[in-house]
Amino acid sequence: MFDKILIANRGEIAVRVLRACRELGVRTVAVHSTEDTESAVVRLADESVRIGPAPPRQSYLNAAAVIEAARITGADAIHPGYGFLSEDADFAEVCHAEGITFIGPPPPVMARLGDKTSARAAMTEAGLPLLPGSVEPLADAESAKRLADGIGYPVIIKAAAGGGGRGMSIVDDAAEFTRAYQTTRATALQLFGDARVYVERYLPSARHVEIQVLADTHGNAIHLGERDCSVQRRHQKLVEETPAPGLPAELTERMGAAAVRGALATGYVGAGTFEFLVDTENDFYFMEVNCRIQVEHPVTEMVTGVDLIAEQLRVAAGERLRLRQQDVVGRGAAIECRVNVEDPARNFAPAPGTLTEFTPPGGPFVRVDTHGYTGYRVPANYDSLLAKVITWAPDRAGAIARMRRALAEFAVAGPGVHTTREFLDRVLAHPDFAEGKHDTSLVARLLEGH
Amino acid sequence: MFDKILIANRGEIAVRVLRACRELGVRTVAVHSTEDTESAVVRLADESVRIGPAPPRQSYLNAAAVIEAARITGADAIHPGYGFLSEDADFAEVCHAEGITFIGPPPPVMARLGDKTSARAAMTEAGLPLLPGSVEPLADAESAKRLADGIGYPVIIKAAAGGGGRGMSIVDDAAEFTRAYQTTRATALQLFGDARVYVERYLPSARHVEIQVLADTHGNAIHLGERDCSVQRRHQKLVEETPAPGLPAELTERMGAAAVRGALATGYVGAGTFEFLVDTENDFYFMEVNCRIQVEHPVTEMVTGVDLIAEQLRVAAGERLRLRQQDVVGRGAAIECRVNVEDPARNFAPAPGTLTEFTPPGGPFVRVDTHGYTGYRVPANYDSLLAKVITWAPDRAGAIARMRRALAEFAVAGPGVHTTREFLDRVLAHPDFAEGKHDTSLVARLLEGH
Repeated sequence: MFDKILIANRGEIAVRVLRACRELGVRTVAVHSTEDTESAVVRLADESVRIGPAPPRQSYLNAAAVIEAARITGADAIHPGYGFLSEDADFAEVCHAEGITFIGPPPPVMARLGDKTSARAAMTEAGLPLLPGSVEPLADAESAKRLADGIGYPVIIKAAAGGGGRGMSIVDDAAEFTRAYQTTRATALQLFGDARVYVERYLPSARHVEIQVLADTHGNAIHLGERDCSVQRRHQKLVEETPAPGLPAELTERMGAAAVRGALATGYVGAGTFEFLVDTENDFYFMEVNCRIQVEHPVTEMVTGVDLIAEQLRVAAGERLRLRQQDVVGRGAAIECRVNVEDPARNFAPAPGTLTEFTPPGGPFVRVDTHGYTGYRVPANYDSLLAKVITWAPDRAGAIARMRRALAEFAVAGPGVHTTREFLDRVLAHPDFAEGKHDTSLVARLLEGH
Repeated sequence: MFDKILIANRGEIAVRVLRACRELGVRTVAVHSTEDTESAVVRLADESVRIGPAPPRQSYLNAAAVIEAARITGADAIHPGYGFLSEDADFAEVCHAEGITFIGPPPPVMARLGDKTSARAAMTEAGLPLLPGSVEPLADAESAKRLADGIGYPVIIKAAAGGGGRGMSIVDDAAEFTRAYQTTRATALQLFGDARVYVERYLPSARHVEIQVLADTHGNAIHLGERDCSVQRRHQKLVEETPAPGLPAELTERMGAAAVRGALATGYVGAGTFEFLVDTENDFYFMEVNCRIQVEHPVTEMVTGVDLIAEQLRVAAGERLRLRQQDVVGRGAAIECRVNVEDPARNFAPAPGTLTEFTPPGGPFVRVDTHGYTGYRVPANYDSLLAKVITWAPDRAGAIARMRRALAEFAVAGPGVHTTREFLDRVLAHPDFAEGKHDTSLVARLLEGH
């Protein structure tokens, strides 16, 4: 096992990684921006290094500063969390060149799967079902339109370098295509420095179901079941759960086997997520691979009993997977709600500030992953995720009831501070959600009042 | 299910009961003393009633005030928690006479099992193994001494009406017996209003292992495995866990079957705990039945996935047990640490005060049951339990590592406030505990420096 790990992230995931390190007896280094000096991970870590000012490019995305912090503290590995440098194959490569283990898949695998078009090509090769669409990046507007016309509308145009629900456009009609193509390219260039886009069929009422995989450096790979992330607002996940309600076990088993096949075919190592769309016919289609831990990983932990971050560390240290596929046994149901500092009444505008009150829920089968504490000033510079509340119960109805109880007792207050806590409760109370009949259109419908 | 439940308790257990009620859609009434006006359960409950000043006899032990509060709020049931009125058969009887369901066993069963000597007689009848000792209360000092001499020293003298580790004396030598007998009677009279004592063989390095049972009103009873509560200071439990380390499954299965036999033989209903001593030969002896939920019930919940308070409510509402014995499957290991506001440096003297900082641990497989929050003034009038930290892992070593991580990140501060947090960590770090070779003498040895 490693001696000292640098956590190249902030917020709740930095605390999450620190906890796994501490339980494995690994020392920790927190890196942070000036803005994050009072953050929970800085308070908890064995050492901390300030790596720059608030803007991510000058701190959390500043690869040189992160590696320098690892060098001066003698960290032998870097955990990138999610976002920031977590899917940056060049960064991973530099880490390894400096003799520091990057906790993630090998850089060439990251590069191949990080590009959505080459990922689609790899998964086609591995025999995974894909939605009709482009496997190669599109050459120009004209050939793109020809492809879209062939697929049939609606289609979705996505940035090849994209992810996290950003840089994509839905096109309902052939007449809108060319304009949308150009806009998406411009957005992709601005967001990811890469204008390449691809196109695929759009499923308006599909469900977003993903498979968690774990793979070691010895050629072993397993899956840990699925997560349903269909509750989204503008492609941002709000509520995630496992098992996926209403999906036959036979289907999720096949999806799991497909993900393992994809992982083995591409030489994947570490924790990864294969995202799929499931249509109303229960056919599933590969969407993308996330080469990192996901925000929603706790629901999988709650039902399987597996500590996914600890497994990432073990695999990165060269250990063999201790679990075989048959050892992974799901029990009960788990749900996660993302409590963001946003004001639903103002179109979910960020609403950060100082937390004069912060009392998270507790009690049986309630887990809270947060960097919040009473007195913490939530900076305005970063994403708005304040806390993940995760509940477990023997069945889904029990997990929902427990979540509603947990959200009701979660006390967060401060001048200017608003959260999505009550909005999330409205989602949970919606009959479609309670019945597990919802799809990715639920939140939009709820916001429109039905 | 009930419509409205009055919670006749305070502190963490009142919050715990409220959570179960809320998840089942049952409205709640909190009763509280003047001192507890700012308590967490008062903040969370649907309604609250102040029933008297701080001294328990004038509020939490004031049966008339509690029943009056139930009457005026229209509560149809009372959950007594642990301590206070929870084992008061007369109170239970009055509740039922008033048409209010007392959530616990039938009053005659409580009365029979609450008296330690009649409980011993009942369990002898049910074929449970008992330590050599008196089954009838002792008539006088002389016959008591004859009995003790016959048993052989050391013996323990216990109050027949006692419980919770209070009102008992260990006698190492025949010469000390008569004096100890008289002292214990005096203490018993003072503590419980009942001077009757009994005597049994004392096992100096026994382990305290208890079995959780659940029984319904339809003649069904199951057990939910064991808890080891051997880490005690002056007969007060500090750390509890399940499974009991090092005990063969065959033994705990036999203990479980014995407890179910005892429950069925006495017409037990609800959640109850059969306490046993296990000697170095792995022979077990019935000690007592606790006719209520226990402080340490969460470890059982963590490994079985069963919400014991919800089950209490269901059984009290007349429902049949939904679980059969074969449905109860333990997974992994769970540990609970009781974090008390006490100062270990001053012989564990109570050290309450206002919590200027209160940040409980979180993250994977960590549960906190507490009534604490930042700004809460812990009153000096009640017991010193501030928070229960419970951790789970696939194995015991993992649960210990997780607990040490959780304790390390638990931030509690305030003027005059001390906690047992660091002391608990010393217990967990002790090689005897780590190896599961400890017995009830561990804390005393640790305090003596070895």
